[in-house]
Amino acid sequence: MAKLRFGITMSLDGYTAGPQQSVENPLGVGGMRLHDWAFPLAAWRAPHGLEGGEVNESTRVVEESLANIGATIMGRNMFGGHPGPWNAAEPWNGWWGVNPPFHHPVFVLTHHPRPPLVLEGGTTFSFVTDGPAAALELARRAAGGRDVSLAGGASAGQQYLVAGLVDEMEIHLVPMLLGAGEPLFEGVRDLGGLQLVRTVAAPDATHLKFARR
Amino acid sequence: MAKLRFGITMSLDGYTAGPQQSVENPLGVGGMRLHDWAFPLAAWRAPHGLEGGEVNESTRVVEESLANIGATIMGRNMFGGHPGPWNAAEPWNGWWGVNPPFHHPVFVLTHHPRPPLVLEGGTTFSFVTDGPAAALELARRAAGGRDVSLAGGASAGQQYLVAGLVDEMEIHLVPMLLGAGEPLFEGVRDLGGLQLVRTVAAPDATHLKFARR
Repeated sequence: MAKLRFGITMSLDGYTAGPQQSVENPLGVGGMRLHDWAFPLAAWRAPHGLEGGEVNESTRVVEESLANIGATIMGRNMFGGHPGPWNAAEPWNGWWGVNPPFHHPVFVLTHHPRPPLVLEGGTTFSFVTDGPAAALELARRAAGGRDVSLAGGASAGQQYLVAGLVDEMEIHLVPMLLGAGEPLFEGVRDLGGLQLVRTVAAPDATHLKFARR
Repeated sequence: MAKLRFGITMSLDGYTAGPQQSVENPLGVGGMRLHDWAFPLAAWRAPHGLEGGEVNESTRVVEESLANIGATIMGRNMFGGHPGPWNAAEPWNGWWGVNPPFHHPVFVLTHHPRPPLVLEGGTTFSFVTDGPAAALELARRAAGGRDVSLAGGASAGQQYLVAGLVDEMEIHLVPMLLGAGEPLFEGVRDLGGLQLVRTVAAPDATHLKFARR
């Protein structure tokens, strides 16, 4: 069966975002620095329509994370905008502009119903109000035999980890402290059979891949 | 100048011990499993007077951590026993028996004065009540030009990190969750110039070495 593959960047002290997340500062105070390992990479820039960039040990990790993905799941907080019911007058359409880098169906976990949002380049956001397992079933069907990416954030990851639905997890561990923010593993008591299967040491991140053996 | 070298084992969710630490369960619930990467190693067994054992990628990390150390500093909680003033009638003499594996002077951070404890094999425990900087000065003097090991636990590590006194830090990151316990970096806002300089991927731990570059 198609795998659910969870990939996320975490600080050495366990946070996926800094404190005080907002529309102006979606990753919280200091949180953007978490992703400094990825932004300069050619493998990250290309799907975002940017030319050039670096090649290093992280390259194959990013390429692998993007390969054979047919659908993506994310939490409402990662899709962003504002808490509570959707504002129909001024709709929040995500952080990624008119042509988001996904190019496949994306399923957003939310408590608030909303019609699908069809953007350019093959990205459609569907809003799922009946929970993580339902979103996974929809995503698997939409992925057409390819895998499903769980893009984050922390809360969405926790829900799938606790439910035992994650088949692969890759932590991009960044050697810095945030001191406060969104803890990745809050409320998660164990890895439910996921074991470390590969470590890639890159200049600005250590990539820890977990799978069922 | 002789370096202060901090080495400690941490779970993926940032704990150095599980919850409910006690004399019966010094590393808390589930905490002993954190050290499963070290116990089977010949390099760990030899200083504890045990024969045999494994050799793997962790071996050189353990050997390096033990080399050129002239003194050790540890927190009261790591020395163990009981909270509050020392019990002179039934003195707690540490976890390590009559011949501890240190074989050099050890300085214990405590709020409660106590005369030095001289054990076999060259290990002397001195109890320092005037703070981390004073303990480091005593340890440096005792080390005779060699480095000083900061053995833990989390609270002692935090005090030296916040004071900017750690020259090298090696995190033995274990790919498991504890879910609760003693967080290594609680109250530490940044690494104060320590940068990741080496990653060693071993079967049951990822060794992350930090230093000033």
